[in-house]
Amino acid sequence: MTHVGLPRALGTCYYPEHWPQERWEADARMMAESGLTWVRIGEFAWSRLEPRPGDLQLDWLEKAIEILNEAGLKVVLGTPTATPPRWVVDKHPDMLAVDEQGRPRAFGSRRHYCFSHEGYIEESRRITAILAKRFGASVAAWQTDNEYGCHDTTVSYSDAACRAFQRWLEARYGDIEALNEAWGNVFWSMEYNRFDQIGLPNLTVTDPNPAHALAFRRFSSDQVREFNRVQLEEIRKYSKAPISHNYMGQVTDFDHYALGADMEIATWDSYPLGFLEDRVVAAPEYKQAFARQGDADFQAFHHDLYRAVGRGRWWIMEQQPGPVNWAPHNPAPLPGMVRLWSWEAFAHGAEAVCYFRWRQAPFAQEQMHSGLLRPDSSEAEGLREVRQVANELASAPKVEGNVADVALVFDYDAEWAWAVQPHGQGLSYFGLVLAQYRALRRAGLNIDIVGPSTRDFSDYKAVFAPGLMHLPDDLRTALEEAKCVVVLGPRTAARTIDFEIPTPLPPSLDALQVTVTRVQSLRSDCPVALEGGGNAVGYLETIASEHEPVLEDSAGAPVAVQNGNLMYCAAWLDDEGWDRLISIVAAQVDMVTRSLPVGVRVRRTQSQEFWFNYNAHAVQTEAGEIEPASLIMRTL
Amino acid sequence: MTHVGLPRALGTCYYPEHWPQERWEADARMMAESGLTWVRIGEFAWSRLEPRPGDLQLDWLEKAIEILNEAGLKVVLGTPTATPPRWVVDKHPDMLAVDEQGRPRAFGSRRHYCFSHEGYIEESRRITAILAKRFGASVAAWQTDNEYGCHDTTVSYSDAACRAFQRWLEARYGDIEALNEAWGNVFWSMEYNRFDQIGLPNLTVTDPNPAHALAFRRFSSDQVREFNRVQLEEIRKYSKAPISHNYMGQVTDFDHYALGADMEIATWDSYPLGFLEDRVVAAPEYKQAFARQGDADFQAFHHDLYRAVGRGRWWIMEQQPGPVNWAPHNPAPLPGMVRLWSWEAFAHGAEAVCYFRWRQAPFAQEQMHSGLLRPDSSEAEGLREVRQVANELASAPKVEGNVADVALVFDYDAEWAWAVQPHGQGLSYFGLVLAQYRALRRAGLNIDIVGPSTRDFSDYKAVFAPGLMHLPDDLRTALEEAKCVVVLGPRTAARTIDFEIPTPLPPSLDALQVTVTRVQSLRSDCPVALEGGGNAVGYLETIASEHEPVLEDSAGAPVAVQNGNLMYCAAWLDDEGWDRLISIVAAQVDMVTRSLPVGVRVRRTQSQEFWFNYNAHAVQTEAGEIEPASLIMRTL
Amino acid sequence: MTHVGLPRALGTCYYPEHWPQERWEADARMMAESGLTWVRIGEFAWSRLEPRPGDLQLDWLEKAIEILNEAGLKVVLGTPTATPPRWVVDKHPDMLAVDEQGRPRAFGSRRHYCFSHEGYIEESRRITAILAKRFGASVAAWQTDNEYGCHDTTVSYSDAACRAFQRWLEARYGDIEALNEAWGNVFWSMEYNRFDQIGLPNLTVTDPNPAHALAFRRFSSDQVREFNRVQLEEIRKYSKAPISHNYMGQVTDFDHYALGADMEIATWDSYPLGFLEDRVVAAPEYKQAFARQGDADFQAFHHDLYRAVGRGRWWIMEQQPGPVNWAPHNPAPLPGMVRLWSWEAFAHGAEAVCYFRWRQAPFAQEQMHSGLLRPDSSEAEGLREVRQVANELASAPKVEGNVADVALVFDYDAEWAWAVQPHGQGLSYFGLVLAQYRALRRAGLNIDIVGPSTRDFSDYKAVFAPGLMHLPDDLRTALEEAKCVVVLGPRTAARTIDFEIPTPLPPSLDALQVTVTRVQSLRSDCPVALEGGGNAVGYLETIASEHEPVLEDSAGAPVAVQNGNLMYCAAWLDDEGWDRLISIVAAQVDMVTRSLPVGVRVRRTQSQEFWFNYNAHAVQTEAGEIEPASLIMRTL
Repeated sequence: MTHVGLPRALGTCYYPEHWPQERWEADARMMAESGLTWVRIGEFAWSRLEPRPGDLQLDWLEKAIEILNEAGLKVVLGTPTATPPRWVVDKHPDMLAVDEQGRPRAFGSRRHYCFSHEGYIEESRRITAILAKRFGASVAAWQTDNEYGCHDTTVSYSDAACRAFQRWLEARYGDIEALNEAWGNVFWSMEYNRFDQIGLPNLTVTDPNPAHALAFRRFSSDQVREFNRVQLEEIRKYSKAPISHNYMGQVTDFDHYALGADMEIATWDSYPLGFLEDRVVAAPEYKQAFARQGDADFQAFHHDLYRAVGRGRWWIMEQQPGPVNWAPHNPAPLPGMVRLWSWEAFAHGAEAVCYFRWRQAPFAQEQMHSGLLRPDSSEAEGLREVRQVANELASAPKVEGNVADVALVFDYDAEWAWAVQPHGQGLSYFGLVLAQYRALRRAGLNIDIVGPSTRDFSDYKAVFAPGLMHLPDDLRTALEEAKCVVVLGPRTAARTIDFEIPTPLPPSLDALQVTVTRVQSLRSDCPVALEGGGNAVGYLETIASEHEPVLEDSAGAPVAVQNGNLMYCAAWLDDEGWDRLISIVAAQVDMVTRSLPVGVRVRRTQSQEFWFNYNAHAVQTEAGEIEPASLIMRTL
Repeated sequence: MTHVGLPRALGTCYYPEHWPQERWEADARMMAESGLTWVRIGEFAWSRLEPRPGDLQLDWLEKAIEILNEAGLKVVLGTPTATPPRWVVDKHPDMLAVDEQGRPRAFGSRRHYCFSHEGYIEESRRITAILAKRFGASVAAWQTDNEYGCHDTTVSYSDAACRAFQRWLEARYGDIEALNEAWGNVFWSMEYNRFDQIGLPNLTVTDPNPAHALAFRRFSSDQVREFNRVQLEEIRKYSKAPISHNYMGQVTDFDHYALGADMEIATWDSYPLGFLEDRVVAAPEYKQAFARQGDADFQAFHHDLYRAVGRGRWWIMEQQPGPVNWAPHNPAPLPGMVRLWSWEAFAHGAEAVCYFRWRQAPFAQEQMHSGLLRPDSSEAEGLREVRQVANELASAPKVEGNVADVALVFDYDAEWAWAVQPHGQGLSYFGLVLAQYRALRRAGLNIDIVGPSTRDFSDYKAVFAPGLMHLPDDLRTALEEAKCVVVLGPRTAARTIDFEIPTPLPPSLDALQVTVTRVQSLRSDCPVALEGGGNAVGYLETIASEHEPVLEDSAGAPVAVQNGNLMYCAAWLDDEGWDRLISIVAAQVDMVTRSLPVGVRVRRTQSQEFWFNYNAHAVQTEAGEIEPASLIMRTL
Repeated sequence: MTHVGLPRALGTCYYPEHWPQERWEADARMMAESGLTWVRIGEFAWSRLEPRPGDLQLDWLEKAIEILNEAGLKVVLGTPTATPPRWVVDKHPDMLAVDEQGRPRAFGSRRHYCFSHEGYIEESRRITAILAKRFGASVAAWQTDNEYGCHDTTVSYSDAACRAFQRWLEARYGDIEALNEAWGNVFWSMEYNRFDQIGLPNLTVTDPNPAHALAFRRFSSDQVREFNRVQLEEIRKYSKAPISHNYMGQVTDFDHYALGADMEIATWDSYPLGFLEDRVVAAPEYKQAFARQGDADFQAFHHDLYRAVGRGRWWIMEQQPGPVNWAPHNPAPLPGMVRLWSWEAFAHGAEAVCYFRWRQAPFAQEQMHSGLLRPDSSEAEGLREVRQVANELASAPKVEGNVADVALVFDYDAEWAWAVQPHGQGLSYFGLVLAQYRALRRAGLNIDIVGPSTRDFSDYKAVFAPGLMHLPDDLRTALEEAKCVVVLGPRTAARTIDFEIPTPLPPSLDALQVTVTRVQSLRSDCPVALEGGGNAVGYLETIASEHEPVLEDSAGAPVAVQNGNLMYCAAWLDDEGWDRLISIVAAQVDMVTRSLPVGVRVRRTQSQEFWFNYNAHAVQTEAGEIEPASLIMRTL
């Protein structure tokens, strides 16, 4: 095992256009002195780069880059396409995205464009080319646009989207009869005579055909990739710097692997307190206990996800440094958390952690969003911890490369399929995978999240792949032939590519020999007890199998069965249920597990072990007592 | 007392257009072997019957009917008008219904048409005539359309509806001054100069005039009847087979009695588990306890209702046979429930129970809806119980005709009146009548639900008629002259036909001599205690009367009073309150009551008594111990 | 101290157009006999005054005024502009207000006009001039329109509003660059090139710029004032009678002080039970306990507010006399409450209390709203108490003029600023001020609510001014120089006039020397404990100050600090916290406080003390035992 230390760096997000030019130099100097090496700029500055059609004003940006570079900072330049100025909208009034209720989304904030609007795609190409040409040689990295999909902006119900969807369907199905057949449009007389009759699946009287809805989700994801590719094409004409996009936490409306495959680096924007309040589904007591620390698994999940999306190369492009402005409640992080979050990212392999933002803006929408500096340029609480991390990075042993015990498959297509047909209130693929992830983390395991195009599982002792409603043939083969234990289900292979129930009934994994004969969704107050502890909750399949069950319900019906290396779990389990399932797997593959307390998590690298305590109180662990909101790094 | 056994039969819903023709014969044979005698087909098949304008393809349907008939099955043929194909919408773009928010309801599911659109009414007439002409002699019964009103489709806010409403008003009121006077439009200067100024009562700044809103509800109901009559007219030109419509549970937006009067048979679609989750208002503990059985009164209520709608002839056209797809949670029925539900229908007088559907569809919106067969044609759980019922029907004594202790009046117009003016959050006429029905069932009574056009109450020991906000003169006379106890109130006769408060103040039942002087709606945590037990909840009138109260509140104010055979109850009561009221009535008319435990219900026929146990545990009763989810039939 | 008794009178709201002319005289006589002296009429009668364009029918109104005057009643005549008839809308189809979702608000109730529509403004001028000319000499007072802003009608998103907003902005900012700079539109490239590019801040993808949103709220308020001024101008051409407007409880969308400054009298519409159910934010137990009495502070708050708005002259124009029709639940007032509410108004300085309405209407939207008479002209419960009040007024010592211990600043602009940026779920300026007000009332203090234009605080021992997000320079100076203790914060001076965070950081009160370094919003289950009792809840600032804290949190961080007469409280406190803060202030200024129990409140005049018991049970006080729902008046 070679212990190679990787480059780790800190950075920040800076908006020179928000401040008088006289302040830029002092800012740059102070960034450098604080231990930062990266600065992202430019991603919302279109109205300053081109205040009127064709009136290009690029000198100020050149000056800013020059000043930053001279202070020893490397620049990530963002394309400004998330915020087309008013005049762009005036030129293309129908470029506005349309929401599910059929209303155009008005100018006045950001992300108001429709990914399918050809006029806007050309504007995006044009401004990107202009920036790439001028700055291609002077920046160290690129970011395309900003947080694709944030504020529910992946999907648009505009006329432009409708026409593009019709073309996409024609390209996919060739003739309309094939589409009618694939979707089962004979049901409810939904058959079309021509592609141009197909509308978008919103505002229907009751549910639209799930095949229709899923196709539209896939199309919408493809449109994001195509939009992004136009920018990549222009940038690469003029620049050799790596290109990234900053994904937003739990935005799952487009396929990040697909975009990631087109770029050199994946980055994501990590707002632990905002996410806890706004996205994490948890009991109020849990949210109360972690209100100032965030969820102990949510960030790690995304770290592991973007390591896959970036094929090993990933950053945090925006790290919360204090209270934010956008969650239902916006408390301050406990002292220590900014440091903890930063080190957790490095422990999971981040190349850089950039704090959003350098100085709090005194105006506009994010004026209540903390920066490392306050609006009056005094130092905010977060900056002290950032300096500490910078010092620790300089003196501590290098953080090492990735190791993993198990793989967990995360598939965007499955997320859309569940969203189209959750079958029970509150059931989601993301929720299922996160529940699985949490259980693996409670067991103290190192996890690689992997995409559905993965075929080589030889690095892992076990693979968990819950909820893959459609299972492509070659992935099925790869899983069947894997040398490790593979845990599938529930809902694995329950649908064909066109969202039809396959016959014979799912799962169609021949090697598994399990038949699902019935599917139930359960009220939260109607769990089904497992023999020996734990429960099936929310989702439960009745299965038939000739193989021995590894989990049964209290009436003796099989809940999980195994045939060779393949295991099928027919239910969404509660915590105790998942823990038991993981123990069974761990025993088979000789994998050491722990039973970590709430809020305590471990992450190993090749010869280091990081222990994180998200709790507001100290916790005694085998690695010693960990202070509240703190961590221990030990060498193995 | 003559004991005449009635015909009882089983059936299913089949979609030959969903399956290869080669499979039809085997399906038909298997249906017959399973004990089924009825098959409903065709009701969503328009796009296969007429794939393009005028391109009729009826041969396949003739073949299907032939095959089914040859297997000894009788066919109910549905008109396909609930699902006009895309090309029909292209031809009449303004035929789409418009929702209360003003948005056209898009093509892509079902029931997307507006009942007032003349172009679509003609399309409906045309396709119905075509089918009637071709199949009028070969089918045993007809169904018009499918589940009128389902998915909130009775009411449409389209331009077509607005124009038709104006004409309807002009026909009703003759001149605009009469309408202004009747509605009290002097209030808030809402007076019109001409009928064509009258809009629909949606999107107003605050509540519209309740007289306006109620008129629009009545109009909307009339439009359904007119739409249906067009089909009846065409079918009867070519066919002598009886005609039915399959009403949906708790769809109360149009007058089912009015439609029922035009047809030979009433049928309804019974989904006990879906209804419990989606429609029944109950405490979470109750929903938890009955999640896999359904509510013990909801189906019976509809059985009794549709016996009235069908003037004695009624079926279940769609009976849930396993988990469904559309409720917030979709559990599987407890073993035994499919049999219980079926027998309960027969005990209430059903001529047939048809299961929806024969084989689960692997595609489109209802792919998660169980059938008697799974998508791969293996037998689903429900089919075993269906076979058992078929055997029992063959061997058991005939189920006998209807008997009833009491009548309960249910009036669609009252439902709309309460909806227009509930006066308190959560108060509804349906809720009030169902509460009354539940109490009568707890007392072990046989109930006839009767419509507001009933004039002869001589079969009953008591009549309950709560909440009839408008009481027509002749019904008032009939009730006053009834020889049994008649329980009225609350809100009886509180409005004129045009939704005005009558003076002298309601109720204007001269014989009753009760004056309502004040009306309150109560928070759920502010019940008003009755002297001797029970509470007024939700709705409470202050009344003045010279007659002795039969119920008082704890401060001595009258809550129910009686004058001769007429009793007036001035409040919505809790369970204990209703039970006391029924005891008082029962004692007067010498009617034996029971006090049945939760989930246990009894239904008598002329010489039989059916005991149903909806609980998941066995219950000891006077008829013996009843197994969980099971029934006892005993001869009296 | 001079003890001058003030005129106190009772009145009612009457709609002659709703009743046959034969009944008017009897009604007038009965009003007078009941002790009423004022009658408001006419405010919804446009369709009877002008049934068709230009067809004026004013004789009936003249007759009605004559009859009322002859019975000794004084008439308040309302302009009918809250209910433009259908033909006015037909003439100006684009006069309809547009809601936030972009939907025109339909004709069919009231308040359907947009304040910015020039055509409608002229219609309003025309009908007002007609009425003023004809009746200017025969009425004793005027009311303009009715309940501006009720049903969310201040703000309209119509095209007319958009164009008017653009003109308003141009007048305010002069050139577009000034606006861009003031709003920080460089953020997210929101910069405009011309004023006509500026849209309304609805339907944006995420939050609009708060500066944009606040400007639109200010503009919308100005439009109400301008609309009202047109009517004042016309009335004053022909009449010397005082003019009023009837404000609705907790309608805060426009600046009532601004309108009040233009008129002689302020009146408001007091519906204590409706408000408790519909507007008051409180625990269910509280709402249960006071369901039939109303909130013990809500009315008093508005009394004190409208005393300021009317510069001493104020009425209740509509007083609830029984159950209303519009709240989620509509119980009847406890016996005694109509009297209690009336006296409470007089104790706070009302000149008149008018009951809404004389006779309950049997038709249209408010048919379930009680009057003093029932629809059949029998006397309703409320009238008995009204007669009692009339008798007491006649015999009791005159109610005297106003005295106050403390001033509480209430500022509409601050309300909009908080609404634009609450920072935490459920936080509102109104809620903060009401919490402060409740605490001052618990302490038994007499409070003057004062507007933000107040400069003289010499009458007060203390001034409380929480939450003034923007603090104008001259108000700051006045507060700094006040001779009493001034309690500021939280959020005081946190924004410039254009909603920018000022630097140095707020509060910029130089004399206070406090710096806010961080702002948090807190989950309701995450209070921050104060040392010594009480908590910060919901909103908490971190502050730096060299002065001694007067309140600290349990970790020793300052929560309230004081420098000379200025105190700054950095948090929203719970009840115990507010009580402690008030005690500290009271001790400094030698102000006697009480600790009143729930539901008991005291109001002093110059030599009288009124004790009110809102509870449903008797309470022992220092003034003696007070019966349930009753009051004691004692001379000091």
